[in-house]
Amino acid sequence: MTANQIFEQIKAKKSFLCVGLDTDIKKIPKHFLQCEDPIFEFNSAIIDVTAPYTVAYKPNLAFYEEQGVLGWHSFVRTVQYIRANYPEQFIIADAKRGDIGNTSAMYARAFFEQCDVDAVTLAPYMGSDTVKPFFDYAGKWGVILALTSNPSAAEFEMLTLEGGDKVYERVIKTSAEWGSIDNTMYVVGATKAQMLEGIRELIPDHFLLVPGVGAQGGSLSQVAKYGMNSRCGLLVNSSRAIIYASSAEDFAEKAAHEAALVQSEMAELLKTLCQL
Amino acid sequence: MTANQIFEQIKAKKSFLCVGLDTDIKKIPKHFLQCEDPIFEFNSAIIDVTAPYTVAYKPNLAFYEEQGVLGWHSFVRTVQYIRANYPEQFIIADAKRGDIGNTSAMYARAFFEQCDVDAVTLAPYMGSDTVKPFFDYAGKWGVILALTSNPSAAEFEMLTLEGGDKVYERVIKTSAEWGSIDNTMYVVGATKAQMLEGIRELIPDHFLLVPGVGAQGGSLSQVAKYGMNSRCGLLVNSSRAIIYASSAEDFAEKAAHEAALVQSEMAELLKTLCQL
Repeated sequence: MTANQIFEQIKAKKSFLCVGLDTDIKKIPKHFLQCEDPIFEFNSAIIDVTAPYTVAYKPNLAFYEEQGVLGWHSFVRTVQYIRANYPEQFIIADAKRGDIGNTSAMYARAFFEQCDVDAVTLAPYMGSDTVKPFFDYAGKWGVILALTSNPSAAEFEMLTLEGGDKVYERVIKTSAEWGSIDNTMYVVGATKAQMLEGIRELIPDHFLLVPGVGAQGGSLSQVAKYGMNSRCGLLVNSSRAIIYASSAEDFAEKAAHEAALVQSEMAELLKTLCQL
Repeated sequence: MTANQIFEQIKAKKSFLCVGLDTDIKKIPKHFLQCEDPIFEFNSAIIDVTAPYTVAYKPNLAFYEEQGVLGWHSFVRTVQYIRANYPEQFIIADAKRGDIGNTSAMYARAFFEQCDVDAVTLAPYMGSDTVKPFFDYAGKWGVILALTSNPSAAEFEMLTLEGGDKVYERVIKTSAEWGSIDNTMYVVGATKAQMLEGIRELIPDHFLLVPGVGAQGGSLSQVAKYGMNSRCGLLVNSSRAIIYASSAEDFAEKAAHEAALVQSEMAELLKTLCQL
């Protein structure tokens, strides 16, 4: 998928919502535990009701690996389900992978060949070797961690380098040269909304994946104010606030309601800030 | 396992070798492809012949994920095989994981509960949130990326911060406070052997996991010279040079021969530098 194709979806849906499928078997409604594959069954129900309001899904691999081999199976089935039923959706494997070149190439095969996602989140610490193998696949994306939403992001990401750049700024400047705006996206946490302004000076045209709205406390309007560009340029993720909106039988209804509320706020922001 | 228990193994085997199980289905002898689980069958054959010469095994998850669900099954079976047959071996899941706190806790469960490895390699970019959940398990280890063996390590790890520290030095200094010498290990590439001297000034007592000897060109004697401490303090990994020593029917014999050669060099180094 190109950046423009993502933007077309955003215009069509009037939404830049990404639903995070951080599916914790301990938190899903109890009746799913009788199913053979509870995580997949829960995911497919959530996907069916939220798809009208969202342009992307982001399963986080930790939640699948925690279930071992069965969890990987649930992950693969979830991706296949989205591909088959909602082919317009952008699928991000939130895996935060990164290794030396020949090994990163294996991760790229894992996610782009064994499993047909559109994008993988990548940790930049080890440099370009770890990212470039993901760019060998036309239409696929690497989503590089830049400034994350967690409290301890300050410990290394926000340190100041000789010359004045913060570490995350250097990561952005350097890595923006590796690919293009059609294969490189950056993770910037919603809890750091005002810092989006400076990031937009470095990369005005790249898409940003913004987690941290909802349960982590980030503000959607602040993210849009500081981060939106003329082609929106944002995918804002919400996980827990949507998928666990209710833990009772009405979980799907409540998840749809939450997703619709966010979409409605996004439609306003796109109108005001992006003239859509 | 404590640091002292690892040292006891090193003394008993006169070896600080870790065999990297980077098992690529395209590189294993062709006759394995007729097996139901070629990667596991190859691994178990390699483990049987190399166990006398090694104190640790390090499966790299990329090579298993590349085979999808079946690959995870091969990984889990490999860990179970080592546990059942060679319980003295230290098992490192080379997964380079790292995510916000609640998600890292899921990864810790994946590797320490679903799958009983001793250690997981971790990417430090996002800070302490990403590492600390792995310390909630007594006897288990986090192996933090510090200075890696790949060419692009220089791009971020070796940048200089305000005040003079390199990024990797700050990662070591800061993260050494999170755990102890009984649960924290660092990845330092063998291709950067002389830099081990400076790293030993920061962390004289921690174990270091050193990849890059063999196919990547690092020198074992240089690594020992600059990195060894009074309790050895090193696990040196070799993957390709051992497990792909031959791609013919004699693969196991050749792998054993290579492992024995490395162990013999290690025995000499332990005698000379560590008075064992």
